Parts: sequence; C-alpha cells; structure tokens
Amino acid sequence: MKHIYHDDSLTLHTDLYQINMTETYWRDGIHNKRAVFELFFRKLPFGNGYAVFAGLEKVIQYIQGFRFSEEDLAYLKNEVGYEDDFLNYLKGLRFTGTIRAMKEGELVYGNEPILRVDAPLGEAQLVETALLNIVNYQTLIATKASRIKQVVGNEIAMEFGTRRAQEMDAAVWGTRAAYLAGFEATSNVRAGKMFGIPVSGTHAHAMVQAYKDEYTAFRKYAETHKDCVFLVDTYDTLRLGVPNAIKVAKELGDKINFIGIRLDSGDLAYLSKETRKMLDEAGFEKAKIFASSDLDEYTIINLKAQGAKINSWGIGTKLITAYDQAALGAVYKIVSIENEQGEMEDTIKISSNPEKVTTPGLKKIYRIINNKKNHAEGDYIAMEDETLPEKQLKMFHPTHTFMNKVVTNFTAKELHEDIFVKGELVYEIPCLEESREYLKQNLDALWPEYKRTMNPEEYPVDLSQNCWDNKMKNIEEVKEKVVSMQE
Amino acid sequence: MKHIYHDDSLTLHTDLYQINMTETYWRDGIHNKRAVFELFFRKLPFGNGYAVFAGLEKVIQYIQGFRFSEEDLAYLKNEVGYEDDFLNYLKGLRFTGTIRAMKEGELVYGNEPILRVDAPLGEAQLVETALLNIVNYQTLIATKASRIKQVVGNEIAMEFGTRRAQEMDAAVWGTRAAYLAGFEATSNVRAGKMFGIPVSGTHAHAMVQAYKDEYTAFRKYAETHKDCVFLVDTYDTLRLGVPNAIKVAKELGDKINFIGIRLDSGDLAYLSKETRKMLDEAGFEKAKIFASSDLDEYTIINLKAQGAKINSWGIGTKLITAYDQAALGAVYKIVSIENEQGEMEDTIKISSNPEKVTTPGLKKIYRIINNKKNHAEGDYIAMEDETLPEKQLKMFHPTHTFMNKVVTNFTAKELHEDIFVKGELVYEIPCLEESREYLKQNLDALWPEYKRTMNPEEYPVDLSQNCWDNKMKNIEEVKEKVVSMQE
Repeated sequence: MKHIYHDDSLTLHTDLYQINMTETYWRDGIHNKRAVFELFFRKLPFGNGYAVFAGLEKVIQYIQGFRFSEEDLAYLKNEVGYEDDFLNYLKGLRFTGTIRAMKEGELVYGNEPILRVDAPLGEAQLVETALLNIVNYQTLIATKASRIKQVVGNEIAMEFGTRRAQEMDAAVWGTRAAYLAGFEATSNVRAGKMFGIPVSGTHAHAMVQAYKDEYTAFRKYAETHKDCVFLVDTYDTLRLGVPNAIKVAKELGDKINFIGIRLDSGDLAYLSKETRKMLDEAGFEKAKIFASSDLDEYTIINLKAQGAKINSWGIGTKLITAYDQAALGAVYKIVSIENEQGEMEDTIKISSNPEKVTTPGLKKIYRIINNKKNHAEGDYIAMEDETLPEKQLKMFHPTHTFMNKVVTNFTAKELHEDIFVKGELVYEIPCLEESREYLKQNLDALWPEYKRTMNPEEYPVDLSQNCWDNKMKNIEEVKEKVVSMQE
Repeated sequence: MKHIYHDDSLTLHTDLYQINMTETYWRDGIHNKRAVFELFFRKLPFGNGYAVFAGLEKVIQYIQGFRFSEEDLAYLKNEVGYEDDFLNYLKGLRFTGTIRAMKEGELVYGNEPILRVDAPLGEAQLVETALLNIVNYQTLIATKASRIKQVVGNEIAMEFGTRRAQEMDAAVWGTRAAYLAGFEATSNVRAGKMFGIPVSGTHAHAMVQAYKDEYTAFRKYAETHKDCVFLVDTYDTLRLGVPNAIKVAKELGDKINFIGIRLDSGDLAYLSKETRKMLDEAGFEKAKIFASSDLDEYTIINLKAQGAKINSWGIGTKLITAYDQAALGAVYKIVSIENEQGEMEDTIKISSNPEKVTTPGLKKIYRIINNKKNHAEGDYIAMEDETLPEKQLKMFHPTHTFMNKVVTNFTAKELHEDIFVKGELVYEIPCLEESREYLKQNLDALWPEYKRTMNPEEYPVDLSQNCWDNKMKNIEEVKEKVVSMQE
C-alpha cells in the first residue's frame, strides 16, 4: 500500500476488533439492540485522593464528527477486505445513541462511571476506543495538574511542556486540562488560540547566545517588549545573569515593566534566595522569581520547605506526560443489553482479579452532600429504578467496610447529565472558564483529608444494597455456568 | 475570548517565547542572520544501548505547512497584542532554511545531533518547539518498541495501546514508530489507513457479554469471519473459555481459519502452558496463543523464563506511553551564528551541570564502520571543515576515556542527509517499509553488546581533537567574561 488515503476523519481512530465485532452484530442482526456501556477507571492515579474529569468537549466533537469518510470506506474495502454490504451499513452510520456524563471539572473516584453510552450495540462498540483515548489522557493530566496546583497554592502555575509532550494533541489538550485544573497560563500559543488560555513566555537561552552576552540580549528584549522576564542562567546565574538583569532594569526604568527573572537550572532553592536578596538590594522588591526545571509537586514541596523564594512555577515534562504514572487505566464495559424480548438484561465480566469484576445493570450515581456543612460525604451508586432513602444513608469505608458512617440531612446530587439524547447534542457546553470555576467549587466542597498530596483518606464510593445484591446474583449465575460446563 | 479561532494551522504550535524572541530579532534587524541549531538528547532512554530516530516524516510535513494562517495572525493581534508591522513580517514568512538530519531508522546516541537547522535566525527559532515535540515522542517510542522487539525475537509483536495513549496523535504516530522499529501490526485502523501498517484484532470481552456466553459468541464470530482468534478470559479461562474455543473450532472445521486464542488477564505463564496442552490434545497444534495484559520487555523476558507458551504479543500501555520513562529530553541548541562581518561565529551555553554544556560550532557527524567486520565502532563528531584522518582513528570510551581503541581500515559514513535546502524539500521520503528495513540493517551492524536489554556497553561518541579544543576555547572565553564582570 502507498500513502494514498488522506487522514480526513477520526472515525477509524478505533481498534480493528471494534469493526470486526460490529460486523458480527450486523450480520447476526443484533447491531441495533440497545446496549449500555460504562466508562470508568478502577484506581486513582498518583496516589491522589480524587481525580478531575476532563475530555468531554473533545468527546462531543468526536461524536458529532462520527461518520466514515469515502476514504475510510475505500481503505476498509481495499486494504482490510470488508465486503460491500457491510461497508454500506457503515457508510450510513451516525451516532444515534444517548450519552450521559459528568461535567468537566467534576471530581471523580475509582469504580464509578464517568460516562455512560446507551446506544445501538454496533455504535456503542465503535466509539469505545476514541472515548477511552480522550478521557484517559485528559483526566490524567487534569488530575496531575490539580495535585500540583494544590501545592503551588496562590502562586502562579504555568504549563510549559509542549516540547516534551507525547506528540501534538497531547500538548494542546494536556495544557487545556491543566488550565481547567487551575493553572494560570500556557506557553503553547496554539492552545491559547484554540481554547482562550492566557499565554506566557519571554525568551530562551538561544537569544542570549545569539547576542553573545546577556546585557545586550536583555537590553534588546527590553527595547522591543514592555513586559520583561529575563532568563539569567545561560552562563552564570549569580555572577552574570542576575547582575545583568538588574543593570538593564535600572537603565530602562519606567520604560519597561520589569516583571522579574527566570531560573531554569541549578540549585533553585539557593539561587532563588540569593537572587531575591540581590533584587531587593537593587530596589526591585516587587520583581518576581520564576522557576522551571523538571518541577512537579514533590520538588515544589521540597523547594518550599527549603525556603525557596519562588513566585511563579513553570511546569513541563512531569505534568504534560504525567511522568510518574503516564496512563490512567480507564475501561469501557458493557453492563446491560436488550434481550430477544426487548427487555434490558444485565451482563457481567468476571476475573480472577476481584477488582476487575464489573458491576452489572442500569445504574445512577449520586454525590451525597451534607446539607449542614455543604461537603461531600461520599458517592452512592444505585440501580436506575431505585428510590434513594430520604432520611439516612449508610456510607461504608471503601476498603475497611466494617467502618461506616450514617449520613442524615443530605442532598443526593445526580452526577450525570444528558449530553446526547438519541444522537442529538442536548448539552450546552460550558466555556472553559466555567468548568475551571466549577472544579474550584467542587474542591471547596471536599474535605481537606481527601486533598492531601500524600496518603489522603479514601473517599467512599458505595453501592446501594440493591446494586450489591444484583452484582452477587450475576456472579452466582456465572459460577453455575462453570459448574454446568464441567458436568 | 470565545472559541472563535479555528485550529487551521500548526504554525502556532510553538512556545510564546519563540515569537517574542523573533520579534526582538526582527525589530533589531538580525532576524535574517544565518543561525545553526542542533537537535539532540543527552542520555539514552530506558537504560538502552541505542536509540532509534523517528519523526522525520512528520517534521517534513510540519515544515512544508509552515505559514501563519489568517486566523493565527488575527489571534496574535487581537488576543496577544502584537503590532501590525511585526505581524506583516510573520504573514509572509515561510521556512527558507536548510535542514540536515539522520534518516528515520538510524541508530542514534547521546550528545550527537539528530537534526540540524541552518536557517535565518527567526525561522530557526519559531520551528524549535514543534520539532522537539515530534522528535522527542516518536524517537522515544521507536526506541522502546525496538527494545521490546529484541526480546520478542522472531515471534509476533503487535501495538494495541490506542486507548491508553496520550491523546490521538500519540496513538497513530506512536504506533507508526513501533512498526518502524519492527512491530508487525497495529490495532489502530486509522494508523493502518495513514501509514499502510497491517491492522490486527478480532473481538473483545464485550462481544462475549453481548451474547451472554462464549460458545454462542465464538460461533457467531466464526460464522461471520474467516480468521478467528477467540478471547477466552471473560468468565473462566481454562474451564469455560478454552473449551468453548476448541468446541467451536471443531464444529466449524475447515470453514474457518482457527488462528488461535487470546489471553488478556491472569497468570499468563500458567494459563498459556495449560492452554497449549488443551489445544494440542484437541489436535490444534498449529493454533497460536496470543497474550496481552500490561506487557513490556521485562514481563516478556520473565514469561519466557517461565516457559510460557506464547506466540504473539499484544503490547499496549507500557509501549505507547513509554511508561517507565515517558519523555525523551531532547533539546535544540544554537551552536553558531553569523556575526556583523557575515562570518559564522560559535556560541556556547554553560551550565553548572557539565553534561549540559553545549558543543559549539559547525560540525559533521560520522559513523565509523569497521570495513572487515561491517560493524560500527563508534560515532565521531568533527568540525565541518575538518578532514578526517584516513588511516587510523582513536575512539575513546565515553566515560572512562583512558580506555580507548585505535580503529584502522574503516569507512566514515556521514550520518546527516540534506532534507531541505534553502526551503526546498530535496529529500526523497522513503516509504515506511524502507525505513523499517534500514533499521534492521543498522541493528545487524551493531555489536550485540550494545543491544542487551540490561547493562549494555556504552557506545563511543567522540569529539575530534579540533572539536574538543574548540569547545574548551569557548568555555575559557565565558570564564574570562565572568572574571571581567566581577572586576
């Protein structure tokens, strides 16, 4: 095959087996049976106490654009060998299902559905891979960014990682996730253009090298830009860089806005403290110190513990790649399917790994909010047709179930909203600023014990008694199947 | 700002500081000075003995498409605040420089330029971020895939990681890098369409769940597909899955091509051995066992050591995210710039970290190939105008320089080719198969000591005496600058 197909659609951004399964469903005539899949991860990343959902906006774009292009169909026919009748079905295919999901900026925990696809079986199957690809990455980065932002606190956090991102989509959607999670700016101009994120950056070592010395370089920059942050570590930070920055700032005076200097290497604790002294002595008490250099939440905690004098943090590699855990293991599992009588029936997947056994059935998910304290007490997963107790709810500790608490005077807030209903987008996509604000409110309503960087408390995610009983019943049925097969 | 700008160009896929520096150069009238930048990484990833260069094809696409769109310019004007005169310069800008680079599939080592941009200063600056973004990721994944393929050997390696990839570009370009590095197939259909990579996959757990039992599901699949690989771990691998697969394979007989079964969870060593016995006893000695489940080079070595009976390896998360080292730290450093007399002058960046000091000047890079054994003895970096000794070359051990060897009867193969010359693409892009074959040849010409998964020997990358002397001279000049500043 030569490169004759244009990359003009994302619909083939799926695993081949999705198309093969769909072919089986279609030839067997069950492709339009109603099927319900849930998207969830099992374990919070980074040992964090919560995750931040991100990715819905791109999921919506993807679903809206879901159609096989002529080139897609030609490729499937000529190179993979599908037959015309099946290709003809694919040709007319649009997403006609219902998607319910959390809002971006929602806090999410292990084993609770972030998103639910309720669609004709074939369609639900074909969109799985792209949905996971999008949600896994964006949620991972939003969570990492939120962790880092907790440590940065009221200082400025900037995302600077494009050059180390895992290709281009990661750079722009990753920095969007970081902004959603509370970062203040990005260096990626395309992301600024796409999402309206404030962009940030002044100059690099190359400019100093191009002018051969810092004094000339800083002066030239200052003569051509009002806002100046000088990068001071091209040759020798304290002996050349900072003195040259101060010299130029004094010479230019009010002609520039001397925001401060940036340190990009070396012992940031020591250098920042020395730089602070030099700036203060020169009368630039308001000049800020920017730092970058392989930073993450741990180095920031450490630098702060050493009394580093840093006002703004530029975070690159460790955030944009989620370096210490580069993937979120979200999965997409079928929980219910229409039977021959047109009724919905549970499905389950068993595993020798107990945490991989799925929770079958049509369910709803609620956040249980303490009305007095306006804080979340935990999440509660119940069957869809189940009425929640109004007076009191028992919430179990996720691992040590003998530990539990009774919650009274609560509001059960349903966490899913309709996004698509029968193929129509019914959700009004909030702007990024709104989602950012929504996350802030969610974090305010979370007990501090769940927000610790290290060893946070485990947030309760409970199944209702009905939901639990139903799961056990399904497990028993599989066990009986195993016994009958062996007889 | 509302989302009013369309993502119609990759030219803003850069860091803001690149544009700010370019503005300074332009206002100062030095934007068209000839500047030479080198792209290189300092340390091999994963403790591997070599890296595999990938990314050139996308770099070429990016450079060819380099122009600020109307929307880019509108964004820069309205939201960032650049002035019209400078925007007018950007508007007409095309890449007019020269790029020399290694070919994809070339073996590459620390501290040697993979790619060199020789262009008007402003242009060279603006393309930095995207070039690093592309090369860092694709080279990282090609290297990881090559490591894994070394361990897999003559068995089949398939890339299955799309759902865990860091967004969409990573999925397709990452799987391309894996194929380049010797993988046999991908699950990502879009990547198959874009790059002509063979696609692979049959069905998932969801299909078994949709049909409620494996026997029905396998039968339905077999009735609709010639080639069958049955996934056997939805309920109970050895008691339900494998017996059902065998039953269907026997029933369908010659009507299908029973390729084998796939294991996706549990103790793969034990399960594969038991499954092998069951398949053999049923007369399916040729049926293959496919395995997947968080595999990487270490788990594969381990499974093989346990005598696992696995014929085909599906590799996901650990490859596509380069999980154990999610970023390659390649950088892009200016080494030479035109002075006011129109001559090229060296530039250097110093650091308190000795390995971060750059090597200044215009240089060439050679692979020293032993003519008798047709094996690479090391790489040699010399000044561009330098003549290489013809008879013998001393190659130093990279760390323990007192250890060295004298190479005679060698060929010095220059590793860079012209890609763009003064803005024109002059390079004939090889098809992916050719690059894949080229890598294979390169690995054949590499001593096995450098190919070990653990503790490989260090491959020599030497500077010529001239190159070393020149670097020292530049360092001395900076030191003198520090002294004079303090006086």
